[in-house]
Amino acid sequence: MSASLPRGLQALLTPRSIAVIGASDHIHKIGGRPIHYMQQHGYGGTLYPINPQRDTIQGLRSYASLDALPEAPELAIVVVAGEAAVQAVSDCARLGVAAAIVIASGFGEAGEEGRRQQQKMVDIARAGNLRMVGPNSQGLANFGSGAIASFSTMFIEVPPQDGPVAVISQSGGMGAMVYGLLRHQGIGVRHMHATGNQADVTVSDLALAVAHDHDVQLMLLYLETLNDPATLAQAAAVARARGVPIVAVKAGRTSAGQRAAASHTGALANEDRAVDAFLAHHGIWRVDDAHALARCAPLYLRDWQPQGRGLVVVSNSGASCVMAADAAESCGLSMAPLAAQTQSALAERLPGFAATANPVDVTAALLTNSALFGDVLPVIAGDAAADMVLLDIPVAGMGYDIERFATDAAAFADTSGKPIVVAAWQQGVAAPFRQRGVPVYANAGEALPALSQWRAHRLRLAELFARPPAPPAAVAPDVSSPSATLSEAASLARLAEAGVPVVAHRLCRSADEAVSAWRALDGPVAVKACAAAVPHKSEHGLVALGCNDADSIVAAFERQMATLAGMGVEAEGVIVAAMVRGQRECMIGAHWDPVFGAVLVVGDGGKYVEALRDTAVLLATCEEEDVARALRTLRIAPLLAGVRGEAAVDMAALCRTAVSVGRMVHAAGGAIRSVDLNPVMASPDGVVVVDALMEVAA
Amino acid sequence: MSASLPRGLQALLTPRSIAVIGASDHIHKIGGRPIHYMQQHGYGGTLYPINPQRDTIQGLRSYASLDALPEAPELAIVVVAGEAAVQAVSDCARLGVAAAIVIASGFGEAGEEGRRQQQKMVDIARAGNLRMVGPNSQGLANFGSGAIASFSTMFIEVPPQDGPVAVISQSGGMGAMVYGLLRHQGIGVRHMHATGNQADVTVSDLALAVAHDHDVQLMLLYLETLNDPATLAQAAAVARARGVPIVAVKAGRTSAGQRAAASHTGALANEDRAVDAFLAHHGIWRVDDAHALARCAPLYLRDWQPQGRGLVVVSNSGASCVMAADAAESCGLSMAPLAAQTQSALAERLPGFAATANPVDVTAALLTNSALFGDVLPVIAGDAAADMVLLDIPVAGMGYDIERFATDAAAFADTSGKPIVVAAWQQGVAAPFRQRGVPVYANAGEALPALSQWRAHRLRLAELFARPPAPPAAVAPDVSSPSATLSEAASLARLAEAGVPVVAHRLCRSADEAVSAWRALDGPVAVKACAAAVPHKSEHGLVALGCNDADSIVAAFERQMATLAGMGVEAEGVIVAAMVRGQRECMIGAHWDPVFGAVLVVGDGGKYVEALRDTAVLLATCEEEDVARALRTLRIAPLLAGVRGEAAVDMAALCRTAVSVGRMVHAAGGAIRSVDLNPVMASPDGVVVVDALMEVAA
Repeated sequence: MSASLPRGLQALLTPRSIAVIGASDHIHKIGGRPIHYMQQHGYGGTLYPINPQRDTIQGLRSYASLDALPEAPELAIVVVAGEAAVQAVSDCARLGVAAAIVIASGFGEAGEEGRRQQQKMVDIARAGNLRMVGPNSQGLANFGSGAIASFSTMFIEVPPQDGPVAVISQSGGMGAMVYGLLRHQGIGVRHMHATGNQADVTVSDLALAVAHDHDVQLMLLYLETLNDPATLAQAAAVARARGVPIVAVKAGRTSAGQRAAASHTGALANEDRAVDAFLAHHGIWRVDDAHALARCAPLYLRDWQPQGRGLVVVSNSGASCVMAADAAESCGLSMAPLAAQTQSALAERLPGFAATANPVDVTAALLTNSALFGDVLPVIAGDAAADMVLLDIPVAGMGYDIERFATDAAAFADTSGKPIVVAAWQQGVAAPFRQRGVPVYANAGEALPALSQWRAHRLRLAELFARPPAPPAAVAPDVSSPSATLSEAASLARLAEAGVPVVAHRLCRSADEAVSAWRALDGPVAVKACAAAVPHKSEHGLVALGCNDADSIVAAFERQMATLAGMGVEAEGVIVAAMVRGQRECMIGAHWDPVFGAVLVVGDGGKYVEALRDTAVLLATCEEEDVARALRTLRIAPLLAGVRGEAAVDMAALCRTAVSVGRMVHAAGGAIRSVDLNPVMASPDGVVVVDALMEVAA
Repeated sequence: MSASLPRGLQALLTPRSIAVIGASDHIHKIGGRPIHYMQQHGYGGTLYPINPQRDTIQGLRSYASLDALPEAPELAIVVVAGEAAVQAVSDCARLGVAAAIVIASGFGEAGEEGRRQQQKMVDIARAGNLRMVGPNSQGLANFGSGAIASFSTMFIEVPPQDGPVAVISQSGGMGAMVYGLLRHQGIGVRHMHATGNQADVTVSDLALAVAHDHDVQLMLLYLETLNDPATLAQAAAVARARGVPIVAVKAGRTSAGQRAAASHTGALANEDRAVDAFLAHHGIWRVDDAHALARCAPLYLRDWQPQGRGLVVVSNSGASCVMAADAAESCGLSMAPLAAQTQSALAERLPGFAATANPVDVTAALLTNSALFGDVLPVIAGDAAADMVLLDIPVAGMGYDIERFATDAAAFADTSGKPIVVAAWQQGVAAPFRQRGVPVYANAGEALPALSQWRAHRLRLAELFARPPAPPAAVAPDVSSPSATLSEAASLARLAEAGVPVVAHRLCRSADEAVSAWRALDGPVAVKACAAAVPHKSEHGLVALGCNDADSIVAAFERQMATLAGMGVEAEGVIVAAMVRGQRECMIGAHWDPVFGAVLVVGDGGKYVEALRDTAVLLATCEEEDVARALRTLRIAPLLAGVRGEAAVDMAALCRTAVSVGRMVHAAGGAIRSVDLNPVMASPDGVVVVDALMEVAA
């Protein structure tokens, strides 16, 4: 571990000494199990069982209290409950212990009194410079240092083995299950940490600490709460610099899930699309559930470099070939077109009726020629279009030489530098491949999305390595103060100042001024009442479009003023604006998120912007190329690129404008709550903001 | 089996006598294995091994030839290859054998000569009233009758057990794998048939035959080719009448998959959205792959009736609760709001810190109170909002009384009538539930989509039971003759005759007629050149919109006539049509599909109909309520229903119009190749077809 870690986090992962407050002689009690694990798995530091009732605990000298120890331990595991736990935390803080793990439950997750007690512990810990994990934590386990400060039974059911993966989870159960699923695949796990109620130390804190462990090659996170994005962003930066991917579940994707999370850990609901944007911004790949976390691991642990999307499918079943081709196209991979030379080389090695175009159907001939995969794979390796290989083996029972197949696949994996995954439908087929480090899945429907994820994620990390993402705002977002709407004239003025192209317009306080503005703008105009108190003008008939003579402009002015007066609203006047035509009505929005700070939204605009939602969400600190990529994922992407003989809209201007809007909100640090620009008229020769609504801190 | 089955199909499934042409004494040779299986699994009919080299085969008398038999067998298994296979088929036909299964490969799938030989066999078989399975078939197996005319090794690897499921697959490997996945779940399989090259007998034929087996409760199909939809529709009708669901993989969903299928079985590409429409029309549920086929089976085998979407999640892990709630919402289920009374009853039975709102987190208290599920489930059963239950058990190792949990879940499953599924993350946890008939999945992400599918499919079948779908066209679709485009005037006339509301218009042959038409239509009009040879008018500047004075109409007429003359095209005149405004530009299309006959397409219209594709595909024989349901799945559904203060468009008129268009194409039986109506202006007070293009058989 790096020496640069703060003392508390260092003590949580690699403590030189550990006290167990509430130690038990019984290895199946919570106060006994960590001691048992540490003795079993070779913890090299000093263990101090604390239990006033006993002289020895599991062969170690037992102490009556923390004060009775010969030194202040670096880490304390607090097994005692209720008031005793609060007292233990207090003792730790007083004696200069660096970190404590509070196992006991019955605090923040258990009603008002529990929350009060939990806050008391936090206050004590913070005052005493003590970092605290939990309460309600299953504990932390580091199989590198042997510091297994955890009571999870999972380490009994599925024997641990040190390895390259770190699992950091808010939920102890979920961490244990991911650990189990990994170990079931034969993958070694270095860290398995559970943060419980996260009263102090969070998953983000531990991710940052673990990212400094040079033996870790992959970090898997389970989050329900995400309220410290700056720390997680920092963890992601450290991990990226070391080439370590982070894959995360952020549960509460849906409103039903968010309600359940609130009840489980009191998690505040995040805006889920902002969570997506945050994770993507920092190169953290988001998956849906714990199984998906474990499933992707074997791919990340190989040192393959991602290339193109071209997949070659090799199978001994024609039907598998067809389903695999379907699955490939469904998840964004493409069936690589094999060169004529490759196909004729394959034809030499395969029976006459085998298919040598991709997918390659080696047929049941595999039963009589165990060397078929070994013959075929090197040929495929030599084809430039072949970026990745799926070996799909639905049928391989009696009589098949699976060990040979696995050896051949492993040789390809090791020498070609190209990723190979296996779909082994039968359990018995999977094991020999797994033993040789070839990623194995139950079927193509699992294998190919994992491969596609691995490729896209590795490419994203490479891109961020070359062009690191902007860090989060320096100040934590705060939306607690009241807010107010700006008038459209004021909004347009603020936007113009920020370099955003806005429609040519004048704020006019009299009918004469309005008529002059029309003449100056030289063409049909829109006349729109301007009053901060009436943000949604068209609902009140306060917009007149296409006015092109003095009479109609005077009439519109007078009608709108009368309407405002009737509403008891003070008017700033009317905006007289040029009528703008564009190829597509787009929208650009930005808002100040209570967790992530400035968030940017871009996409299709117009009247039905909500009903037909076709927008992308990004962190506002993104770059123009991020916006361009996001726009390319929208349904309207072909329209922006130009269809039916239309020219493409000015994408550069659209992206530049979006970035300007996002930067403006980011720079305001909360002073601007939201910006809503719709329509933003996008044309081949530029973009113009036609309507604008801003909300600011009052 | 029903006596109503034709003789050939009857002989394939329940033959009274079977000859094996090319019989072997060796039970692991293809000619020996079926004899071995049949002797082992109690085939009750007469077996005739045919092998001129031996006197006995596996203890049975062997015969020198088919002619040497004491009777013509009902079924012959043809194991011999090449010319000998053709001769065997010829002998079968000559002697009055009812059906033959040709195992040998090297025919249709192996080049020109193979295809020629295969066609020869088909011709011989048809002439002799012989039904033929294969060639290149693994054979058919019926564990009810013991007629196991199959050489699949899968019955050795995974011992068969007669049961309620039928697997019918074009691919032998895929059939075997689905069989294996079902047996792995402890599910009995009655039929496992593979049709191979389908030179004569298809999956549809066997599905129709198997649908008559009264012990079958579920049919699972794997199709690559679908060229006999009428037979499959008939099979679906027989199955529906008996309450037997059919779930199918139709591989080749994507263009890559279709290319692979063409190479595998020479399958002609189907238009995939028409496949979807056909299967949905007949109540066949489509899934993506073989694993999905096997996964849904246990749910269909329970006699639960589908109710609402309300799901209750019960788990011993809070994190699982959150992920399950996310998964539920993602697949269209909803978290059931439990009544206050239910929640207080749960609170009495659960520890203080457990969550009693849905999801119900029973916490680790399950470890010390094995009766917790048994206490909680009957309370949930009594809540009217609880339609279905997911028991999610990620953690249950040492110390948990799984047998007790399974007994309690089974009691709920049997007595409440409400579906219950289990997510058992650990293998050891799954078995006790499975043994008691409770459907088990690896996680909520697999369980809930299966539950959602089961519910939607059962509801669809109930609906089709009450209102059976129209059968396919009596004539097989044929698109081989040339086709021609009708002029817009002719198209509109044909549509009006069919009762489709078309825009008020006149076909005008002179400028004077055009001006008169404008006066008669009383308002601005569109002037559009009318010529069958120029279907896409606007690309040639042949449309003038919003003409509202005599001069501009005369000018438009003359300009358009001149343009057509310049193109060397004979003009019918111009159409002068009323300008129509609508709330939404929709589209209605129909075409004559070479496999499925008349297919209907409805959805969003306008200029970007292809780029923003938002359409639904149905068989043209659907009803108005089918169209309405399809429209509700579109992105524009909220717009049709009315947003932002707009009234809903006249959905009844839109659906009626779509059905009329579909019926017209269906009734024409191929004489109309396609109809393309865009825009169809949809308003609160009706719909009007504004532009029409029809293509007819020339």
